[in-house]
Amino acid sequence: MEFDEDLKKRLEFSNTLDNLKQVLRRNLIMDGSRRENSAEHSWHMGIMAMFMTDYAPAKVDVLHVTQMMLIHDVVEIDAGDTFCYDAKGYEDKAAREQAAADRIFGLLPEKEGTMMRALWDEFEACETTDARFANSLDRFQVLLQNMNTQGGTWRIYDIPKSKVLIRMGQVQQGAPALWPVVLEMLDQAVEQGFLVDDKCG
Amino acid sequence: MEFDEDLKKRLEFSNTLDNLKQVLRRNLIMDGSRRENSAEHSWHMGIMAMFMTDYAPAKVDVLHVTQMMLIHDVVEIDAGDTFCYDAKGYEDKAAREQAAADRIFGLLPEKEGTMMRALWDEFEACETTDARFANSLDRFQVLLQNMNTQGGTWRIYDIPKSKVLIRMGQVQQGAPALWPVVLEMLDQAVEQGFLVDDKCG
Repeated sequence: MEFDEDLKKRLEFSNTLDNLKQVLRRNLIMDGSRRENSAEHSWHMGIMAMFMTDYAPAKVDVLHVTQMMLIHDVVEIDAGDTFCYDAKGYEDKAAREQAAADRIFGLLPEKEGTMMRALWDEFEACETTDARFANSLDRFQVLLQNMNTQGGTWRIYDIPKSKVLIRMGQVQQGAPALWPVVLEMLDQAVEQGFLVDDKCG
Repeated sequence: MEFDEDLKKRLEFSNTLDNLKQVLRRNLIMDGSRRENSAEHSWHMGIMAMFMTDYAPAKVDVLHVTQMMLIHDVVEIDAGDTFCYDAKGYEDKAAREQAAADRIFGLLPEKEGTMMRALWDEFEACETTDARFANSLDRFQVLLQNMNTQGGTWRIYDIPKSKVLIRMGQVQQGAPALWPVVLEMLDQAVEQGFLVDDKCG
């Protein structure tokens, strides 16, 4: 038996996806023992969409957000993970990721490829209510990780509170109900010495 | 500010979820370099539900299957991963996993806890069309991993074709359109020396 072309494409895509398990983010997993990979991160975000629904603006479609979360980092298979405070890396991030999206989602039969590309484009454009909520959770998770690992990437890379606040600003728009929580956690982080408040004094 | 009780519960659940990133399955990732963890596996399965829809029976609700996939291994945080060919491990698997489900989903506020527990119960009972399709994909992914790693767990643990066929039998019921693919892959596995055909000769 020869497998049909569409199945071959799906299997090629599936094999390619596996590489996301080897893309390391800067963030540490919650016990601080190692860096998180982008596949397990995407899983965590997919479930988070399901149990953080109460913090979503009313119009959010949770299932759609969950799908977006599963897809949102797939381009890192080719483009790598760009640390969110790496200004130089951000210069060509969009171009690298667009090329990756063309290649990777292009492996699939057209129907699924188009559907997944649309999810990724929506997440990246961050204009719909769903995409803003998804992006907010993506940033909120890092906050939780850093709070659980004595400051995590904030301390490792000397990121001051002013920069974290800018990065977390997305939450104010995309998940307004979570914004007071973010501010409180950042205050706690400063109090506990996890984060330097560069506006102090 | 004190965080409200429901938020505290959600954060506790989120922290607990993180432990699934440290539960190792027997299966190797596709390049054979290391064992797969259950979190990244669950992510792979969530997306697989989205791009293997054409092999699902007509009535399958893909979004529901995707959610089920994200949840299906969460109990392993407490119960550990039980290798599917470990007869002794299977003796108390159900009891260990029920206790884990009680504890872990019980961490959440009632609404989300009940929703996630229902997804897990449905996957485990494997009686609905959605759950059968989900279980089928769960087994199909292992097949793909073993085909890509010169036999993977079949060779490492001396699992003969007769046992693999029983294990894969779920696919015949849950994703009948994939069953000829499974049979063909197993034939190829035997031809390539990845799997021993114990019915031969």
